Amino acid sequence: MNQTSQTTEEFIIPKNEIRLTDGTTFHSYRTEGSLCMHHEEFDYKQGIAKIRKPWIEKRESRGDKNFSQMYYARRGEITEEMRFVAMRENVSPEFVMNEVKIGRAIIPSNKNHLELEPMIIGKKFLVKVNANIGNSAISSSIEEEVEKLRWALRWGSDTVMDLSTGKNIHETREWIIRNSPAPIGTVPLYQALEKVKGKAENLNIDVYLETLIEQAEQGVDYFTIHAGVLHDYVRLTEKRVTGIVSRGGSIMARWCLHHKKENFLYEHFDRINEVMKKYGVSYSLGDGLRPGCIADANDEAQFAELRTLGELTKKAWEEDVQVMVEGPGHVPLHLIEENVRLQSELCNEAPFYTLGPLVTDIAPGYDHITSAIGAAMIAWHGTAMLCYVTPKEHLGLPNKQDVKDGMIAYKIAAHAADLAKGHPGAQERDNLLSKARFEFRWEDQFALSLDPELAQSYHDETLPQDGMKKAHFCSMCGPHFCSMHLTQELRKEEASRK
Amino acid sequence: MNQTSQTTEEFIIPKNEIRLTDGTTFHSYRTEGSLCMHHEEFDYKQGIAKIRKPWIEKRESRGDKNFSQMYYARRGEITEEMRFVAMRENVSPEFVMNEVKIGRAIIPSNKNHLELEPMIIGKKFLVKVNANIGNSAISSSIEEEVEKLRWALRWGSDTVMDLSTGKNIHETREWIIRNSPAPIGTVPLYQALEKVKGKAENLNIDVYLETLIEQAEQGVDYFTIHAGVLHDYVRLTEKRVTGIVSRGGSIMARWCLHHKKENFLYEHFDRINEVMKKYGVSYSLGDGLRPGCIADANDEAQFAELRTLGELTKKAWEEDVQVMVEGPGHVPLHLIEENVRLQSELCNEAPFYTLGPLVTDIAPGYDHITSAIGAAMIAWHGTAMLCYVTPKEHLGLPNKQDVKDGMIAYKIAAHAADLAKGHPGAQERDNLLSKARFEFRWEDQFALSLDPELAQSYHDETLPQDGMKKAHFCSMCGPHFCSMHLTQELRKEEASRK
Ligand code: SF4
Ligand code: SF4
Repeated sequence: MNQTSQTTEEFIIPKNEIRLTDGTTFHSYRTEGSLCMHHEEFDYKQGIAKIRKPWIEKRESRGDKNFSQMYYARRGEITEEMRFVAMRENVSPEFVMNEVKIGRAIIPSNKNHLELEPMIIGKKFLVKVNANIGNSAISSSIEEEVEKLRWALRWGSDTVMDLSTGKNIHETREWIIRNSPAPIGTVPLYQALEKVKGKAENLNIDVYLETLIEQAEQGVDYFTIHAGVLHDYVRLTEKRVTGIVSRGGSIMARWCLHHKKENFLYEHFDRINEVMKKYGVSYSLGDGLRPGCIADANDEAQFAELRTLGELTKKAWEEDVQVMVEGPGHVPLHLIEENVRLQSELCNEAPFYTLGPLVTDIAPGYDHITSAIGAAMIAWHGTAMLCYVTPKEHLGLPNKQDVKDGMIAYKIAAHAADLAKGHPGAQERDNLLSKARFEFRWEDQFALSLDPELAQSYHDETLPQDGMKKAHFCSMCGPHFCSMHLTQELRKEEASRK
Repeated sequence: MNQTSQTTEEFIIPKNEIRLTDGTTFHSYRTEGSLCMHHEEFDYKQGIAKIRKPWIEKRESRGDKNFSQMYYARRGEITEEMRFVAMRENVSPEFVMNEVKIGRAIIPSNKNHLELEPMIIGKKFLVKVNANIGNSAISSSIEEEVEKLRWALRWGSDTVMDLSTGKNIHETREWIIRNSPAPIGTVPLYQALEKVKGKAENLNIDVYLETLIEQAEQGVDYFTIHAGVLHDYVRLTEKRVTGIVSRGGSIMARWCLHHKKENFLYEHFDRINEVMKKYGVSYSLGDGLRPGCIADANDEAQFAELRTLGELTKKAWEEDVQVMVEGPGHVPLHLIEENVRLQSELCNEAPFYTLGPLVTDIAPGYDHITSAIGAAMIAWHGTAMLCYVTPKEHLGLPNKQDVKDGMIAYKIAAHAADLAKGHPGAQERDNLLSKARFEFRWEDQFALSLDPELAQSYHDETLPQDGMKKAHFCSMCGPHFCSMHLTQELRKEEASRK
């Protein structure tokens, strides 16, 4: 797989290029950006190219006050960001503008994230995948976090959330943003809580807004904000098996109960809106009351919050601020569709962004699989972006291998959904790979697969010889029982008879 | 996890027992049988206990001519096998008898497989998983194959297919059966082909029946028989991207085209029926024309064969022979339901037994995941048994780790479907595990998971200290941001306020 790009008068669009031995070339969506960062000497302190600088300067010089893409879309202005994503997704800029205008898609793009190569999240576009990175109490260095970012993008992450909660979170975030061609999301509540020394009851709108501005200044593209965890809803979680499993949700619940007051994020949503507008940050309305196990799926608490998120979506839209809405979590297969349907109705088709969901609780250590099943289903029904789950979910902080395993499982889920939705062109890669498989072009089959090295190593485990890369069988069925070889022989004989 | 069993006057029912630290005990379905074979000194040449000996002797002494469970069910006789599976599945023997009678469930049980601890396959019962074992040209020893059998059962395989095609296949099969408490399936065509020195055109009904009888004598419980690959259907595969990908299908297609005659398995189905009756073997009607890639899914060839399988199901039932029907393969998410619906209609609800299906072709090396997604979906819609796919699919012969990885992915898929179908009791394990998770009973969480050792090792990677098995957090979110800990604190405070 080579990095390549489509260079137009205006843009350099990142693409991967796969050249096949039959002369075909296949291009795929590239999340690593147009600049390859994967060389040894890469120094994160340089950051990457600031391709949006001229775009933003133009808007600032004319005195824009709202930097949201929805604001521009509603004024009928096709931005560079819209043209960029249109080329990435092979659709017209007008189509992009319209989807953003009606709120069915968002282009998360803080005006201060000048390194961003824009991408779009919405059900009419390719299904996207988000990877979470960030240290916890067991800290890792800034360099390690930047490396994790690059690693996640390497395996196809479309957006990355920095969920750091440890030390140096400001500086870590700075270098993540300066090195990311992909949108970066955060949960500002985590840093706000650090500012009040971990005491949830000491939180208030001022320290929160201060944090919001600090992070927006750095260039965070979307914020998870738990404004839907209302005071009244907390009691709805009392009978749950696993209570509140969102960190942000449990912090806000604690605040509400302690003060016997309404969630200050809900109460001061207007002030939050102002920050979002000013920087062009998008909402990722957090589902603080998402179910944490099969038993709690689709319960009253979850759907009460979802209704509030629908209300907040409208409020955000009144100010032309872009919104996506977060979803569960843990949901059995038969209850998945209801989640998408309700979210779509209550939030007027604002993009849905779900964590999995896991379709069973009984396989810790394999939750990338339990959740890829739910993720494929929910994305098929209309979820626009999937937050990945790694094999370490519920058990510990993921390492590099876990990040990769989670990403691959989710690229599979997202692609399966694109196929099922009949997304134009989605099946091309499947068809090319299957054709290569049938024609025993092993090298092409490997090259087209999501993880070429692994596919080849599996093949080579039993048949490492170079000649076997042309063999008309593999060790699975062996030379005498290779059905594809038998079919080929059949076709040849039939052809010669005609 | 301990092996245990439920001992009644009549039977010893195999079960797994998990004792939790809160005093609860959880019992789960055990596929390894009532005798633990996992000790060092185990000698496969002894075989395991022949629990069905008295049951079969009784039937032989009274001169039964048909040993099919459907035969007994239709006469209103509740057999030991039916009582055994009723206890395993926690339903009434009458219910089992009725499901077998109407053909909606089968109990594969050759009268010569005396070691069998009966199990049932049907959509009203727990979803089952089959593992394929067997050597290919790269041969392995008999001992290795018996070890693979035990390994597959260890990870929860409900039935095992021996797909050996190499040397010593008779003897290998013998020892697999003599050591298996689970039903064993084969594809007799493979051995028949060896008998005619690999020349498909030299096959005929006599050598086939001879092979069938040889294998039935040994005790094979179900035969995959590709009697639906009709002469006329072969041309329907001409335009396919990957042609015919079933080994049996491609062999029969070759035979038909060579002789310009109808498939001899179809033509002589009555004679095959006679063997099935005599030994009580069940059909697994092979889908020789299943799609081998997304592009070929749900095509004319596939559904033409399915109609013929429906016709053959009726023929088998006329002789009281049990039937299940094999299904695909490679199917995108949105075409999965149609497969189940058509199969159910055309085959009058005879159990469906599908291979995956894979929902995309682009991830060789990860096809246990691409196919677990399809498997969960198709089982939810009514597939009774899932044939697993390992990470090595399309690339090579699976090793032990691949067998385990494939099995776990499929236990997840099967269980997810049981949950979605609302199978009674299916959610108990999820609920117990989630409760243990919420209460930070780490040891219990590990014990209840599908792979306790792996779950524990993932946890211990960052927090290996013994004290951490009681800690109210893990390294994923860290001590200050553990949402479950925060919820617990909240509940405590609320309780103290009341
Ligand atoms: S031997 Fe089997 S798995 Fe390998 S290429 Fe041939 S048909 Fe495919
Ligand atoms: S730290 Fe996070 S993953 Fe670990 S037990 Fe607590 S809530 Fe669960």
